[in-house]
Amino acid sequence: MEKKTFTAEEIAKIAGGQLAGNPSARISGIASLRDAGPEDLSFLSNRKYCSSLETTKAAAVIAGKDVAGRYPNKTLIICENPNIAFSKAIALFAPPAVKFPPGIAPGAYVSPSAKLGAGVHVGHNAVIEDGACVGDGTSICAGAYVGHECRIGCSTLIYPNVCIRERCIVGDRVVIHCGAVIGADGFGFEAGPAGIVKIEQVGIVEIQSDVEIGANTTIDRARFGKTLLKRGVKVDNLVQIAHNVVVGEFSMLIGQSGVAGSTEIGRGAILAAQGGIAGHLHIGDGAKIAGQSGVTKDIAPGQAVVGTPAETPKEFMERVGLPGKLRKASQTIAALEKRIADIENEMARLKGA
Amino acid sequence: MEKKTFTAEEIAKIAGGQLAGNPSARISGIASLRDAGPEDLSFLSNRKYCSSLETTKAAAVIAGKDVAGRYPNKTLIICENPNIAFSKAIALFAPPAVKFPPGIAPGAYVSPSAKLGAGVHVGHNAVIEDGACVGDGTSICAGAYVGHECRIGCSTLIYPNVCIRERCIVGDRVVIHCGAVIGADGFGFEAGPAGIVKIEQVGIVEIQSDVEIGANTTIDRARFGKTLLKRGVKVDNLVQIAHNVVVGEFSMLIGQSGVAGSTEIGRGAILAAQGGIAGHLHIGDGAKIAGQSGVTKDIAPGQAVVGTPAETPKEFMERVGLPGKLRKASQTIAALEKRIADIENEMARLKGA
Amino acid sequence: MEKKTFTAEEIAKIAGGQLAGNPSARISGIASLRDAGPEDLSFLSNRKYCSSLETTKAAAVIAGKDVAGRYPNKTLIICENPNIAFSKAIALFAPPAVKFPPGIAPGAYVSPSAKLGAGVHVGHNAVIEDGACVGDGTSICAGAYVGHECRIGCSTLIYPNVCIRERCIVGDRVVIHCGAVIGADGFGFEAGPAGIVKIEQVGIVEIQSDVEIGANTTIDRARFGKTLLKRGVKVDNLVQIAHNVVVGEFSMLIGQSGVAGSTEIGRGAILAAQGGIAGHLHIGDGAKIAGQSGVTKDIAPGQAVVGTPAETPKEFMERVGLPGKLRKASQTIAALEKRIADIENEMARLKGA
Repeated sequence: MEKKTFTAEEIAKIAGGQLAGNPSARISGIASLRDAGPEDLSFLSNRKYCSSLETTKAAAVIAGKDVAGRYPNKTLIICENPNIAFSKAIALFAPPAVKFPPGIAPGAYVSPSAKLGAGVHVGHNAVIEDGACVGDGTSICAGAYVGHECRIGCSTLIYPNVCIRERCIVGDRVVIHCGAVIGADGFGFEAGPAGIVKIEQVGIVEIQSDVEIGANTTIDRARFGKTLLKRGVKVDNLVQIAHNVVVGEFSMLIGQSGVAGSTEIGRGAILAAQGGIAGHLHIGDGAKIAGQSGVTKDIAPGQAVVGTPAETPKEFMERVGLPGKLRKASQTIAALEKRIADIENEMARLKGA
Repeated sequence: MEKKTFTAEEIAKIAGGQLAGNPSARISGIASLRDAGPEDLSFLSNRKYCSSLETTKAAAVIAGKDVAGRYPNKTLIICENPNIAFSKAIALFAPPAVKFPPGIAPGAYVSPSAKLGAGVHVGHNAVIEDGACVGDGTSICAGAYVGHECRIGCSTLIYPNVCIRERCIVGDRVVIHCGAVIGADGFGFEAGPAGIVKIEQVGIVEIQSDVEIGANTTIDRARFGKTLLKRGVKVDNLVQIAHNVVVGEFSMLIGQSGVAGSTEIGRGAILAAQGGIAGHLHIGDGAKIAGQSGVTKDIAPGQAVVGTPAETPKEFMERVGLPGKLRKASQTIAALEKRIADIENEMARLKGA
Repeated sequence: MEKKTFTAEEIAKIAGGQLAGNPSARISGIASLRDAGPEDLSFLSNRKYCSSLETTKAAAVIAGKDVAGRYPNKTLIICENPNIAFSKAIALFAPPAVKFPPGIAPGAYVSPSAKLGAGVHVGHNAVIEDGACVGDGTSICAGAYVGHECRIGCSTLIYPNVCIRERCIVGDRVVIHCGAVIGADGFGFEAGPAGIVKIEQVGIVEIQSDVEIGANTTIDRARFGKTLLKRGVKVDNLVQIAHNVVVGEFSMLIGQSGVAGSTEIGRGAILAAQGGIAGHLHIGDGAKIAGQSGVTKDIAPGQAVVGTPAETPKEFMERVGLPGKLRKASQTIAALEKRIADIENEMARLKGA
């Protein structure tokens, strides 16, 4: 592959930014501030790396308005959102994305009663069961499983070895990463007279359009009705979403977090990594749940919580500061004890006098 | 599919409940209290939803004895266990369960030395290795892997893309959900003279009858001997069970929980979501470990624990209440300080007098 | 299979240990101290099981120097490292390891543009995409997926249903357990003017030689550049490693732990089970992070931390002891209160007098 090169000026145009510095600086690759060589483009979006901006060898750096004018000896491309702008520059140098060609690859099984739209890719050894429908331009990659009567939308990307169980519904432009399991039985058991009884899980999972689901994440089918991920929800890897959960538009569930059964999460909420929400709760729009937190009560819209059991950041910081406060209180108590002893001695002397 | 309809009286009979209200109320579907329309059957098993019972449009509601007589304007079907009763009603309306037909589907590989019982289903692109045995009526679904010399019982359901490594044993009527991995190597490494040495893991996993294992859960093979899940154990999704663990009859391990190596869990214990148990511990029969708890010591039979490190609920609640108590203590200390200063002033005056 | 038998003396030689007791004790199997019968070899490496050493029926026991001479009525084989020594003995009795035969099994797909080294095994229904390279003696087991232009080293073992996405690099003698996903997109989204924008993830994952990766673990590809696991890293099951993370030589990440984006972990560090590290941090060589801990700041080399937010073990123990200390402080406060009241009464009397 021939190496592409651009000038800093060309990059600024593509990224939609303001150039400050050498417009003809030659750029032939991308790298982090620390790793960049003299022909690399880099970027700064996290304040933490400001010191690396001073020492970087990068030919040019995409950065936000907050650093404009502060590094006169650097070639900067100042952008509204450096993260998004940098993505446009990355695209210039990135290898072309893998294309999954239309058609049914050898070794795949597509049931005669399944319906495939135009331009659908079915990868090697993928399986599409009876009555399933797959929309135009969707890829069902190698080894993936689409169960009976599933309905998959258009321009959706189902990566290798994903499983989607029977009757589940997936929208348009959805991405489901390798190994994710959609529609396994919810965990429902009851103590019956003759031991544990399984509560049948006859509902489905519905995943609306523009959702992305991480690798090896599991989303259980509803007991009845549906487990629902609304439009634009983003789910990271190894997340567990239990039966009958509802996740509102554009909410994000980060790696290894979990949501127990029947909980409803509003729009634009964030559940950070390894956090958990108990069952049958309401989480308000825009709520922010910190990593490793354990939510046991409803959360109001816009509220931030942290800790187990989850509380406000202010309460949590008070809790974190307890050892120091108690140490101080103990010192005060000891001082008081001494003053009281002094007084008692004095009193005894007074009385004795 | 033609819509089935029943009367409330018919449903009451099927569910084994006592009807109160309109026996001829017409029911053609099921829904939650909130979502139910005028021809839907609903149910109440969680007290939290009592208020929804008042406002629901449902034609009839299955409920427990605790609400009998309290909603005279509603058609109720009062049952011993509303959860189990409702499952019987759900079954009337649920789409028929997927049937996996007997036989070896195209693309599957079954070793000539493997033995399949009567009516076994081997799904598309599933693999059954040399010397494996599969009992009557068991389904090995699409893309699943059954390793060398595994022994799988009868009427067991191995969902798509499950992996069972060599020599593992699975009982009768077991359900293993998509993507679960049974018998990967335990995590055993030792610092040797020349770096890290792998401790070979030559044991197996034995899963007894009537066990259910969730999607993408991992159960490691023993270093030697076996990792053992006894009869009726229920494991949720994304759970990690390390080498040489023993889980007693009917115990439940909920989503994303984990058990470290060689720990033994008794009968009927519960490890709630995201909880963890350290290695080489004994967890007594019927112990209850709360969500996100971290168990670092043996747990007595029947004991409930919560927190990290896990303690009794009473101790945990004391810990949760610490900030409030310390705030109160600080106020008391400040008041004492003032009283002491007053006394000291008084003393000075007395002495000065 | 004929039963193999050895004498204790023979085992001592093989294990490289010092025999104390009956050299001709006959050994035909291996078992734990508790389960061992009179012809079994057992071992003691965890002090916790010392009491089982007294009661075991084992014919002989491999143990460390610390117990030498303390059990004169037992046949002991005293070794420098009992764990490693016992592994050598296990190997004598273990069933032979599964061998994956060279060649491409029926149902596998290997792209015409992929290059396979000598003696490569490609299991049933495995898929190797265009331009991928696989080194000599490597096994790509059944149902595994090797994406476009991946480079896999020699003598590496990719277990069934593993997914490795395009362009990722895997070294020599690497083991990747079932269901692991290497190179899924990192979780990168930005709030743009028209909703959430996906930040394309065009980097790769590089896994150096002698790394082992657990079942259903997920390691995300870099945004650009690479997510890097250096030589000898050991990763347990269900671990999440986010984009652009670097893990240093011989570090260990235990079950269900997680590392957020761009964090760098040094050499020989340990992240224990269910622990988490936030993004953009530096974890020093040899750092030890306790189970379930949540790391939110850089960790110095060799430092041990525990808790959420993570602190030193001493600080954590102080925190654990808070309820007891506050109870004590409250008692002291109450006693002081009483003494002050007494003084005040006395003062009143003095003044009144």
